[in-house]
Amino acid sequence: MQPTTNFMQNQTLILIQCQDAVGLVANISNTLAKYQLNIITMREYVDEEANKFFVRVVCNGLFPDQTQLSNSLAEVLPPSAQIQVNPSNRKKIVVLVTKEHHCLADILVRQHFETWGAEVQAVIGNYDTLRSFTDKFEIPFHCISHEDLSKEDFENQLIAQIKQYTFDYIILAKFMRILSPLFVATFENKLVNIHHSFLPAFIGANPYKQAHSRGVKIIGATAHFVTDQLDEGPIIVQDVRHVNHNYTVKDMVTAGKEIERAVLSRAIRLLSEDRVMLNDYKTIVFE
Amino acid sequence: MQPTTNFMQNQTLILIQCQDAVGLVANISNTLAKYQLNIITMREYVDEEANKFFVRVVCNGLFPDQTQLSNSLAEVLPPSAQIQVNPSNRKKIVVLVTKEHHCLADILVRQHFETWGAEVQAVIGNYDTLRSFTDKFEIPFHCISHEDLSKEDFENQLIAQIKQYTFDYIILAKFMRILSPLFVATFENKLVNIHHSFLPAFIGANPYKQAHSRGVKIIGATAHFVTDQLDEGPIIVQDVRHVNHNYTVKDMVTAGKEIERAVLSRAIRLLSEDRVMLNDYKTIVFE
Amino acid sequence: MQPTTNFMQNQTLILIQCQDAVGLVANISNTLAKYQLNIITMREYVDEEANKFFVRVVCNGLFPDQTQLSNSLAEVLPPSAQIQVNPSNRKKIVVLVTKEHHCLADILVRQHFETWGAEVQAVIGNYDTLRSFTDKFEIPFHCISHEDLSKEDFENQLIAQIKQYTFDYIILAKFMRILSPLFVATFENKLVNIHHSFLPAFIGANPYKQAHSRGVKIIGATAHFVTDQLDEGPIIVQDVRHVNHNYTVKDMVTAGKEIERAVLSRAIRLLSEDRVMLNDYKTIVFE
Amino acid sequence: MQPTTNFMQNQTLILIQCQDAVGLVANISNTLAKYQLNIITMREYVDEEANKFFVRVVCNGLFPDQTQLSNSLAEVLPPSAQIQVNPSNRKKIVVLVTKEHHCLADILVRQHFETWGAEVQAVIGNYDTLRSFTDKFEIPFHCISHEDLSKEDFENQLIAQIKQYTFDYIILAKFMRILSPLFVATFENKLVNIHHSFLPAFIGANPYKQAHSRGVKIIGATAHFVTDQLDEGPIIVQDVRHVNHNYTVKDMVTAGKEIERAVLSRAIRLLSEDRVMLNDYKTIVFE
Repeated sequence: MQPTTNFMQNQTLILIQCQDAVGLVANISNTLAKYQLNIITMREYVDEEANKFFVRVVCNGLFPDQTQLSNSLAEVLPPSAQIQVNPSNRKKIVVLVTKEHHCLADILVRQHFETWGAEVQAVIGNYDTLRSFTDKFEIPFHCISHEDLSKEDFENQLIAQIKQYTFDYIILAKFMRILSPLFVATFENKLVNIHHSFLPAFIGANPYKQAHSRGVKIIGATAHFVTDQLDEGPIIVQDVRHVNHNYTVKDMVTAGKEIERAVLSRAIRLLSEDRVMLNDYKTIVFE
Repeated sequence: MQPTTNFMQNQTLILIQCQDAVGLVANISNTLAKYQLNIITMREYVDEEANKFFVRVVCNGLFPDQTQLSNSLAEVLPPSAQIQVNPSNRKKIVVLVTKEHHCLADILVRQHFETWGAEVQAVIGNYDTLRSFTDKFEIPFHCISHEDLSKEDFENQLIAQIKQYTFDYIILAKFMRILSPLFVATFENKLVNIHHSFLPAFIGANPYKQAHSRGVKIIGATAHFVTDQLDEGPIIVQDVRHVNHNYTVKDMVTAGKEIERAVLSRAIRLLSEDRVMLNDYKTIVFE
Repeated sequence: MQPTTNFMQNQTLILIQCQDAVGLVANISNTLAKYQLNIITMREYVDEEANKFFVRVVCNGLFPDQTQLSNSLAEVLPPSAQIQVNPSNRKKIVVLVTKEHHCLADILVRQHFETWGAEVQAVIGNYDTLRSFTDKFEIPFHCISHEDLSKEDFENQLIAQIKQYTFDYIILAKFMRILSPLFVATFENKLVNIHHSFLPAFIGANPYKQAHSRGVKIIGATAHFVTDQLDEGPIIVQDVRHVNHNYTVKDMVTAGKEIERAVLSRAIRLLSEDRVMLNDYKTIVFE
Repeated sequence: MQPTTNFMQNQTLILIQCQDAVGLVANISNTLAKYQLNIITMREYVDEEANKFFVRVVCNGLFPDQTQLSNSLAEVLPPSAQIQVNPSNRKKIVVLVTKEHHCLADILVRQHFETWGAEVQAVIGNYDTLRSFTDKFEIPFHCISHEDLSKEDFENQLIAQIKQYTFDYIILAKFMRILSPLFVATFENKLVNIHHSFLPAFIGANPYKQAHSRGVKIIGATAHFVTDQLDEGPIIVQDVRHVNHNYTVKDMVTAGKEIERAVLSRAIRLLSEDRVMLNDYKTIVFE
């Protein structure tokens, strides 16, 4: 695993995905050399089946004119290439919660001490439970209760509230409402969920109860992008922990929370450093 | 995790399971003290939901008369208690294979150097592929091809061959035939399988292909007792390894073999040291 | 690893250490059975070399009279036996810090949401850096600067401040001053430190710099009791993480903080559940 | 961690190390593009402190003329550049052993089933213990006893025997003799050792005894190149396993062997796939 802590100060970050072809690395690196940009790290991946090329390049020195560099790269790449030069190096996030604090607390502490490149814009809960904790960190908290509302009305209020903010990602930090396809479509590729199991095992509700009944020896958690398919979106990070016959369901939940917190935290860090690229139903993670 | 290497030389091992009640530990330890047996380790588990008590005790000194000790214990335990005193401290195993060598090789090497308490009686393959390797270790190899045979006939031949041997466990070391309920019933609680995935994810065939398509970040393996339900038997050991987008299906298979080998090896060691007790659909593993 | 989350509500917890002898488990369990206490878990360890016996027993039901039970147990145990019945089931801790927040923040969040049995009485820093964060959680913060003070005077002030509080443990949560033998002796067996390396590798200062120069592929952290010998006290918890050639010293520090936080957190949880017993230079951890 | 299993069939592998400069990637990738070589994976590392550049490139298609490609690359790189094109894609190894079988057995089994790119040329033991096992695999075994010989004479015989073979690496697979600086110098950068601890903890003999006395909660193993400094050579692979107070020294040895085997096996695989580059006292491992 690579370190994921170097912020992009005095560096130029370039992300490209396009159809694969001979000479892409040459074309890209020629362009960079032309601008006297020295490559510090270049990580690329070729999906041979899909004939697609992905690359993440970090160069020494902050190149002043992003548009110029982007255009120069576009000239030497296939027409459909997606090019990003220095995407915002601090990601803005909106965090959705229900009642559980473990993921939110981790996010707010890191935010407070600025230990990563993510900036919480607001926390939105369908209960008021986590308001006072969020207040400590001087982050806006909005409660939008799902009670007495149709799913449609609830989601519309939620969407309206979210749209009050500028954001790169919406983090579902133990947000316990199933979202409609419409909601998901509204925020395509921006919704990141922490699922309380090692997907694809134990899809759906009560995974720890399922895990306990099954007598598993390992439990896990999965951070993934949200798509229409419940718990089926592209996986970003997974991790596990050994358990044994002594674990009650409650013990599994407690142990699971530690994994959930760590996995979501890692996913947000990777996203904030632009190390995650989407490749259809999967992710490429340049750790 | 506890060490699992001390063989039972000059020790008395006792396994008990029965209905739970107040005073069981007192009754058992009184009996042991009466015989001047000093308890080295005692591991017990109470399944509160099922009201069942499980214990594994190791005492200093080999008690000469197993029947006497067993009877003395029975007198102070509920009538339904299952008591084992010094179950054979070297387990005899019959190994079933198809073509893959990684688990078998590990078993035969450990057998050869006597690094665990399991003794391979014979290897049976539905192909002849692994005969010459098995021959190196002077272990009988029998090939029973499933080709040109009905499933029933194949299994009958297999059963007949297995029954030529005395054994404690039948190890399915990458035996790639699905066994009938009848076969499973014939060897109840004696069949141990290594499944090439982290159950319950990816049940059935081609788990690595499934894992690759799903873009998982972790793959695993599961050693479990075999029951009628495909891949649903009580789990003994599970382990995992991190993977990433660079892994092809073939890479996952290769990495998976390392996990399979380690997981099955650990399961056999635990079984050979009588550290695994069955509790309906689950296991208790006194590691 | 066992779960460590079940608090001792409606349970009786007993810790005993004494010289080993035949019949100890019998004597203990007889006494418990006499009081109709049903053993839920009993974990014992015999140090055969030192001829010492250690046991941790959890029984169903809260026994009302601790002294009576303790006396009854003393009657059937060797004279030197140390017996604890229901030691305070919430541990009071005083936390010492310098400037780094990662361990303190974890402790304060768990304190705030009461997710473990430890209660922070106060935070004491030799800098004022972490005051405002501590204030958010309404925990007293005292700054005792080491600047302009002799080591002796500094420690005397520290001792005086600590003694204002009732506490079970003093947690050195990245407290970056080396403590004198006198200080250590003042709080014997009560000082718990998080060391930023996998002891005994890289004893002393700048372990990550040492680790980087050495090109290690793994870094770690160690929670341990503090004794006179620098970084030589009994180890409670250790954990590690893989690193590689890409890690700068700074990356190692960042990754190390995650391990430090997790390791110290786990150590405090184990201590708060009375799962750690001292055995000279080592610990017994009944996880 | 990257998969390490894809052999270099129909691929061109290029390894380069040289002084760092702007445009190196461009120069290299231009040269490759000129020959219509499509880059599958390119992993590079810049040691900014030492101003050195390292790269490992895999291209689609086997380029027929290695010398031509190497010369073309040399033209566009600094004069001191070290360039390797398609280094032998199966590494020849000579294995040195004493009495312990666990590492050797793993190597011979993988050799037998050709699951990696290493080819054992011979096994040399300072005892005859492992001859019969080696014989099973039809690999030459030579016994050169150190008894009744001066260290110098012993090593001279050893060197003479080793030099009977063509080899890329000499694997010290639990070879329990300390080698002289002269011996080490004779086979510079070719000697790979498995050390039975997590270096730099417990340098020297009896690490498990040291680990037990210290009450560590983790034990490990280290595969490293051998240099003059005992146990100080560049580290290739390290791994660990959790232990606890129940482990005797013997249990630690047993658990340690499993780690040693796995770590050495992984190191040989990485070497056989040319994923390891030396950078003074450290390694770069392009996993």
